[in-house]
Amino acid sequence: VKAEIIAIGTEILLGEIADTNSSFIAAELPRLGIDVYWISSVGDNRERLLEALNRAWERSDLVFTTGGLGPSEGDITRSTMAALVGEQLTLDPAVVEKLRARFARIGREMTASNIKQAGIIPSATFIPNSRGTAPGWWLEKSGKILIAMPGPPAEMRGMWENEVLPRLKQLPTGSVLVSRTIKLWGIAESAVNDMFLPLFSSANPTLAIYAKADGIHIRIAAKAPDENIAREMISPIEKILRKELGNVVWGSDNDAMEDVVAKLFAEKKLSLAVVEGFTGGLLMNTLCDCPGNIHYFKGGLVAGSAGLLNEAGIDYGLTENPEALAVVIRRHFKADIGLSVTNIPTGEQPAVNASGGVHVGVAVGGTTRRITLSSVRERARAKRWVVSAALFELFKTLEAVGLEQ
Amino acid sequence: VKAEIIAIGTEILLGEIADTNSSFIAAELPRLGIDVYWISSVGDNRERLLEALNRAWERSDLVFTTGGLGPSEGDITRSTMAALVGEQLTLDPAVVEKLRARFARIGREMTASNIKQAGIIPSATFIPNSRGTAPGWWLEKSGKILIAMPGPPAEMRGMWENEVLPRLKQLPTGSVLVSRTIKLWGIAESAVNDMFLPLFSSANPTLAIYAKADGIHIRIAAKAPDENIAREMISPIEKILRKELGNVVWGSDNDAMEDVVAKLFAEKKLSLAVVEGFTGGLLMNTLCDCPGNIHYFKGGLVAGSAGLLNEAGIDYGLTENPEALAVVIRRHFKADIGLSVTNIPTGEQPAVNASGGVHVGVAVGGTTRRITLSSVRERARAKRWVVSAALFELFKTLEAVGLEQ
Repeated sequence: VKAEIIAIGTEILLGEIADTNSSFIAAELPRLGIDVYWISSVGDNRERLLEALNRAWERSDLVFTTGGLGPSEGDITRSTMAALVGEQLTLDPAVVEKLRARFARIGREMTASNIKQAGIIPSATFIPNSRGTAPGWWLEKSGKILIAMPGPPAEMRGMWENEVLPRLKQLPTGSVLVSRTIKLWGIAESAVNDMFLPLFSSANPTLAIYAKADGIHIRIAAKAPDENIAREMISPIEKILRKELGNVVWGSDNDAMEDVVAKLFAEKKLSLAVVEGFTGGLLMNTLCDCPGNIHYFKGGLVAGSAGLLNEAGIDYGLTENPEALAVVIRRHFKADIGLSVTNIPTGEQPAVNASGGVHVGVAVGGTTRRITLSSVRERARAKRWVVSAALFELFKTLEAVGLEQ
Repeated sequence: VKAEIIAIGTEILLGEIADTNSSFIAAELPRLGIDVYWISSVGDNRERLLEALNRAWERSDLVFTTGGLGPSEGDITRSTMAALVGEQLTLDPAVVEKLRARFARIGREMTASNIKQAGIIPSATFIPNSRGTAPGWWLEKSGKILIAMPGPPAEMRGMWENEVLPRLKQLPTGSVLVSRTIKLWGIAESAVNDMFLPLFSSANPTLAIYAKADGIHIRIAAKAPDENIAREMISPIEKILRKELGNVVWGSDNDAMEDVVAKLFAEKKLSLAVVEGFTGGLLMNTLCDCPGNIHYFKGGLVAGSAGLLNEAGIDYGLTENPEALAVVIRRHFKADIGLSVTNIPTGEQPAVNASGGVHVGVAVGGTTRRITLSSVRERARAKRWVVSAALFELFKTLEAVGLEQ
C-alpha cells in the first residue's frame, strides 16, 4: 500500500508553524505495512491544493491530509476534496445539531462559518473529533482512500488514536512491520556498530542504531505476514543483543529513563534528595514530570551564586566534593539516596555557570561514588546529557540495591 | 520570486527524524521577498527524487534542497541533480585535497566514498561547509537557481548563515518584507483582536496574532522596496499598539522573558531566591539557561513530598500561604526578592502533584502579593504556562522597583 501525506496551511509555508503531524503519521505507518513515498506541504490556495490532491490521488493508494478543516475563509480542504472527486457538498443536519450543542455547552454562539464544518459529500463519512469542533473525513472512491484530519496536533492525534488507526488496522496490506527498540547508556554508537556488524547486514529483520539524548537506541524491525511471526523473528536477536550488551541496557520501546527510575524507587521503597549545580533544576524538573515522583522524591536544592550553599545550611567547603555534597543533601532532606550534580572547580567559582567537567555524586547506604563527565556539546544539549547520565547513575544504583546485601 | 523546498531522506518518510530544515528555511525567506509555494520530502530514491526535482525546476525560480550529500550509497542528491540538468559529474582536485586535509586533522582515514563529496558539474559551484565534510552546491542554469545543502541541521544552519543568506540578499527580488513582533502577557487573543480590529484588515503592513507559550505575539509585517521604507511603515503602528496595550507588553522580536528579567535584575542590582512546587524546577532551570543568571540568582528549593519544607528548615505551616513562603525563601537565601510557586491546597497535600489552582507569591521590599492561576491545560503545557506567568510577575515587580520610591 503506497501512502502520501499532505499538510495544508499557508502558515507552514511561511515557517510560522512547523508541520509535526506528517512526521507523526509517517512514524505510525510502517508497522501497518503501509509505505510512505511522499510528504508535502501546500498553502491555503485552492488551485495548488487541487493540483497536489490530484497528483496524490493518481500516484498513491492512501492519502492523509492535515489542516484546513476549520471555520475560516482560508479553510478549503473540504470544498477542494469535493472538487477532486467531482461531488457536491451538502450539510449533514445531525452534525449541525451536534455542533450547535457543543457550542452551547462551552457557552459560545455558533456562527454561519462554523456550520461549514458539517459539510459532507456522498463518498465521504465523518470522522469524530473528540478534542475540537472540526470532524474529519474518510473518503473512499475508485479503490482509493483519502483521510482528512484537523491541523492542531492534539486534535489530530486524538482522532488518529481513537478513529483512524483502528480502521487502518482492518486494511488488508499483506504484511506488518513490528519493531523493538533497546535503549543503552554509556556506550558509543561506533562500539555498538562494531559489536554487531554481521547483524546489521540482515535484510529482515533489519537493525538500525540511533544516537538520542537518552543514549543509543538499537531498533530491530521485522516484516512478516502477521505480528506473531514478526515477534518470533525479533526475539532471538533481542536475546543476543541483551546478552552481549549486559548492563548498559536500561530500557526498551517507549521507556523514558525517569519512568524506569521511578518504578525502581517504588519497588525498592527508597527516597531521593537532589542538589543541582550545572543543570539548574532540569534534573528535578524531569523527575517531577513523572507521575510517580511523589512517592520517592523528597525535594532538593538548585545552586545559585557562590554563597548559596552555605546560606542554605550546607557547609560550603564540601561543595568541591560531589560525594560529600550527596551525603549532605541526603541528610538534609532525610532521604535514602542523595544525588549531586555540580561543576564547581574551586571554592570560589559559582556552581551554575562554570564550564568544563561536571560531576555527579551519589550517596546510598554507607557508600558514595562520583562520576565525572566532560562534554563538548553546547550548553542546552550538555545539560540534557548530564541529566541522562545522572538518571542512569540512579538506575544502576537502584538495580544494585538488595543485590549487595 | 517563487521558491520551493525539498527535504531528501528516507528516514524522514519513515518518521524517524522530523524535517526541521524546511520550516527554518521557510521562516527565513519572506523577509527577503521570496515566496515559498511548496515544501516536500522525498526518499533516497533516484526515480522519485528526479521526478520531484523536475517538477520543482519547472514551476519554481529557486529550489532549496537539504540532505543526501553524505558519503554513503544512499546519498544521491549530487548525481540526481547532474541528471536533472544533463551534465557530467567530475571530481574537483582542490576539494579532494581539502577533504583529505580535513580527515587528516581529525585523525580519520578518507575512504573512496568520502571522495564522492568532491563531485561537481559545470553549472554548479561549491558552497563551503564549516561544520561538516559535505560541501553544498549552488547551481544556476536557464535563469533558475538550485541550492543544495546538507541534512544535519547544525551544518545546514551554519551554511545558511555564512554562505547562502548573504548571496540570497543580492538577488533582485524587487521587495523586502520586514517584520516587528511585540510580545504580551496577561491578555487574551480575542481581546487583542477586538482592540485593533481595523488594523487587522490592513493589506500592507499586515498584522497577525499568535498565541505562544510566552503569551500573545503581534507581528507587524511591511513589504516595501527597501528596509528603511518598510521600517517607516511599521513604526507608527507599533506606537499605536504600545500606547493602547500599556503594561501587558514585555518584549519584542527575539526577546525571551528570562533574558528580559535577567537584564532588569542587572539594572536594578537585585537578587532572587525561588521555591518551586508545581513547576518542579522548570522555572529555575529556565532562569539558569540565561547567561546573566549568576549575577542575581542566589538559588532555591524544589518542593518534593509532604515533609520537605519542614525538613529544609522552613515552617511547614507557611506553605499554605504563597506570600509567606516567598518571604521565607527570600530570608533563607538572603535575597532581595523571594518568589514561590505552589499549588498546595491544604497543609496535608503534597506540593508537586496536586492539580487545580497554582499560586505565585512575590516578596519584595516590605510588600508581598500573590496571583492565582487556574489552568485546564495538560500538565507539561500548564507548567510552561505557570513559568511564563511567574516570569511576568518578576518583570512587573522589577519594572516597578525604583518607581515607587
